[in-house]
Amino acid sequence: MKIDLNSDMGEGFGPYRLCDDEAMMKIVSSANIACGFHGGDPDTMGRMVRLAKQNGVGIGAHPGLPDRLGFGRREIPFQADELRQQMLYQLGALMAIAGAEQVTVSHISFHAAMGNMVNRDPVLADLMMNAIATVDANLVVFVTSGSEIEQAAKRARLKTLALFLADRAYDAGGKLVTRRLPGAVIKDEAAVRARVRKFLVDGSVESIDGAVIAMPARSILVHSDTPGALELAGIVRGEIEATGATLAPAAELGD
Amino acid sequence: MKIDLNSDMGEGFGPYRLCDDEAMMKIVSSANIACGFHGGDPDTMGRMVRLAKQNGVGIGAHPGLPDRLGFGRREIPFQADELRQQMLYQLGALMAIAGAEQVTVSHISFHAAMGNMVNRDPVLADLMMNAIATVDANLVVFVTSGSEIEQAAKRARLKTLALFLADRAYDAGGKLVTRRLPGAVIKDEAAVRARVRKFLVDGSVESIDGAVIAMPARSILVHSDTPGALELAGIVRGEIEATGATLAPAAELGD
Amino acid sequence: MKIDLNSDMGEGFGPYRLCDDEAMMKIVSSANIACGFHGGDPDTMGRMVRLAKQNGVGIGAHPGLPDRLGFGRREIPFQADELRQQMLYQLGALMAIAGAEQVTVSHISFHAAMGNMVNRDPVLADLMMNAIATVDANLVVFVTSGSEIEQAAKRARLKTLALFLADRAYDAGGKLVTRRLPGAVIKDEAAVRARVRKFLVDGSVESIDGAVIAMPARSILVHSDTPGALELAGIVRGEIEATGATLAPAAELGD
Amino acid sequence: MKIDLNSDMGEGFGPYRLCDDEAMMKIVSSANIACGFHGGDPDTMGRMVRLAKQNGVGIGAHPGLPDRLGFGRREIPFQADELRQQMLYQLGALMAIAGAEQVTVSHISFHAAMGNMVNRDPVLADLMMNAIATVDANLVVFVTSGSEIEQAAKRARLKTLALFLADRAYDAGGKLVTRRLPGAVIKDEAAVRARVRKFLVDGSVESIDGAVIAMPARSILVHSDTPGALELAGIVRGEIEATGATLAPAAELGD
Repeated sequence: MKIDLNSDMGEGFGPYRLCDDEAMMKIVSSANIACGFHGGDPDTMGRMVRLAKQNGVGIGAHPGLPDRLGFGRREIPFQADELRQQMLYQLGALMAIAGAEQVTVSHISFHAAMGNMVNRDPVLADLMMNAIATVDANLVVFVTSGSEIEQAAKRARLKTLALFLADRAYDAGGKLVTRRLPGAVIKDEAAVRARVRKFLVDGSVESIDGAVIAMPARSILVHSDTPGALELAGIVRGEIEATGATLAPAAELGD
Repeated sequence: MKIDLNSDMGEGFGPYRLCDDEAMMKIVSSANIACGFHGGDPDTMGRMVRLAKQNGVGIGAHPGLPDRLGFGRREIPFQADELRQQMLYQLGALMAIAGAEQVTVSHISFHAAMGNMVNRDPVLADLMMNAIATVDANLVVFVTSGSEIEQAAKRARLKTLALFLADRAYDAGGKLVTRRLPGAVIKDEAAVRARVRKFLVDGSVESIDGAVIAMPARSILVHSDTPGALELAGIVRGEIEATGATLAPAAELGD
Repeated sequence: MKIDLNSDMGEGFGPYRLCDDEAMMKIVSSANIACGFHGGDPDTMGRMVRLAKQNGVGIGAHPGLPDRLGFGRREIPFQADELRQQMLYQLGALMAIAGAEQVTVSHISFHAAMGNMVNRDPVLADLMMNAIATVDANLVVFVTSGSEIEQAAKRARLKTLALFLADRAYDAGGKLVTRRLPGAVIKDEAAVRARVRKFLVDGSVESIDGAVIAMPARSILVHSDTPGALELAGIVRGEIEATGATLAPAAELGD
Repeated sequence: MKIDLNSDMGEGFGPYRLCDDEAMMKIVSSANIACGFHGGDPDTMGRMVRLAKQNGVGIGAHPGLPDRLGFGRREIPFQADELRQQMLYQLGALMAIAGAEQVTVSHISFHAAMGNMVNRDPVLADLMMNAIATVDANLVVFVTSGSEIEQAAKRARLKTLALFLADRAYDAGGKLVTRRLPGAVIKDEAAVRARVRKFLVDGSVESIDGAVIAMPARSILVHSDTPGALELAGIVRGEIEATGATLAPAAELGD
């Protein structure tokens, strides 16, 4: 069995760092690289691309809203075409930076508010997915299983890869529990370890209210900007290897 | 004889406009589109690409320093690789926005301080041109004849297109007279008209000190951000047509 | 009778201009100076302060949301205390720039989305007005008659000055008709002239549905960023003078 | 003997942190608060002011160039009056935020490139100091002994406070050794401790080439944005207390 392990990377800016990207790049198989709007800058993007290349890590664009102060977490009422151009701008910027290093951007993963806004609006989701497909029909779109983005990506004949968030609680319907509710973020290492193991062994996860639900994902997302992020990523990778699964980047797994 | 007529476009930002881009797009054969650093933003870039497509105008990237307040005119001491990533970032951003409209970016023209910094440093010029060639070997680079950028572009086997600035004075060595000197900018319409005619007829221009010098250019640049820019552009286009030359975008003329 | 004539000024940025501020400063009695968030920058603010001083124009802060791309017109979900600090930051910035020219900031007028957000939330309005009163208890707050800002300003014992927007339609309840509705902006010069005259003569205005309503204002706001803004401002000033009223800045009229 | 211990604070931005400001604020007697250009933002500034007030720490403005990407360390060729307005803007912004908490900004300390540019140009230094004196004649200016800023501040009748940088090497002339030279930054804790003690006991420091030079300073600057910054600050404070000196903020010590 092959599985992807991915994280959001290069979300620093100028003198600022949110993650030890050098260390994280040795753990993951896919990197979602911030593209200069909510985090990142051209220089940081170049460093991320080189690190990914050195470590054999798959490169993805991680576009967000143009809101560095709010780290792309605030929903800002942009028009649909404005969002589309913002996404294209960031995707293309990373494609050129990667291209100059003779590597390819193979996937795209939306950041925070941009992702939430697209997932709520099927018309916007189609607009975004069709734009992506026109620019590069081989891109794999990271999705939550059953989401608007997943459905729009399939309509645009784009490959998708469903994510499992190992340290986040799900409800009985398979949706992420909002961060504002208690228990939404799972910080206990043993609990995370157990969830990853269960997911790898039988493809399921226990919901916040105790139900066992199917988790049809092929990629595990670990956060990079929290204390202990590296340790947690290492634990998840250890569990993957302990169960005999093999790490593979998004480009190999998307379908 | 074929000649290109180009202008810097889409240099507004949000509510701000520097040029009547809709009208200018009906006059030029190539548009150098600002890429969001010194001017422009994703939404404006999208509008420019659509206007260029509607008008059959060639699309070029017009990257500048990340200095909107100074409009990219101040030299800021970036490292060579920082400049390279900034250029790639902007080029790629426009390529994706154009790609989604199913048109191609065919040329690149550096803005203000970024161009000056590259033209002063052959090592930096090689770094930039090699990066461009790796991303897209078909791009035509807009140059001043004899400049470092021209030489580096040729070393990188990129096509170039030399510019004639119809409203700017040249010295006897064929170099632009700095804007800080009197007479550097030619505002008299009849004078501009005569210069364009002379350039079209015998490929020469009269220098600021009265010498007739060769002007081996195939493209005329008209400014878009000055009062009377549209009228001047119309005059230049009129002269081109009056001499029997044909307008053609950069993609046809670069070599 | 004394009346204030005010406009939003200095809303350009770097190379960008929205208004001929030099000419407008000769027409108005109060200038609401953009403070670098939705428009303006320190250099522009300094120019505005000097122009106001030269022309005997009252100086006011015109704070907006930190959204230059959207010109402060988009509502962005900031926390109340974030908005309060953003307002204070901009107000203080202008106070120091004015202080160095030995003139005083005498009023404050909220821009677009920031004003709308404050006017919708009495708790936020109190937070903002109390902060203003603590920084400078002599500041006059520009208000719409009957608004949350007016009420909160009075609770904070701040002086207020109610605005009449000569080129905007009001509904029968005295509220501004949203710009999205037809007829909301009155562009006909004769109509604006007649409205100003009626307002000056009997303190009333005809609403969009034909009712005559009281308009208890002491200051007329003219827009600066629309085509024909200078002409319209000149017409309004001419009407004021024709009715025998005298122009006076906000500092004299607030109560 | 009274001595000030100060650090640059609030240099984070949005989600980014460079320093544990909460902990550092318990160690220092004066805080130089970033004002939103090279670092900081209105919300962070508000937090810093409240922390300083809670801890009885003196509040100072720490203005820098408008270059967040370069953290204000790159010299950008602004005109003298542009720099003056940028400084005033930042100073005033902090004054209003502090004023709303009913505390006073008592000092000003220039950041990085802005400081270097002012220290190199006596005309610019006079321009800046006169502007500060006009806005608030009671402000204490942090200086390097013998610098252009010190001399200009005295000409403008502003109080000054000379700094000793405990972890930076000085040359035999009493000037800071540039960071680019080896040995410029002293990382050994015992060495820093010994330097602080010597400075406190006899007002001298050993230069990089072994000479003992006078160090006529009344304030020790500790960096906040380096690994181990808190520990180093604690060591410096421990030495101050061990020698029987008393901590006092800039407002008490400037002359």
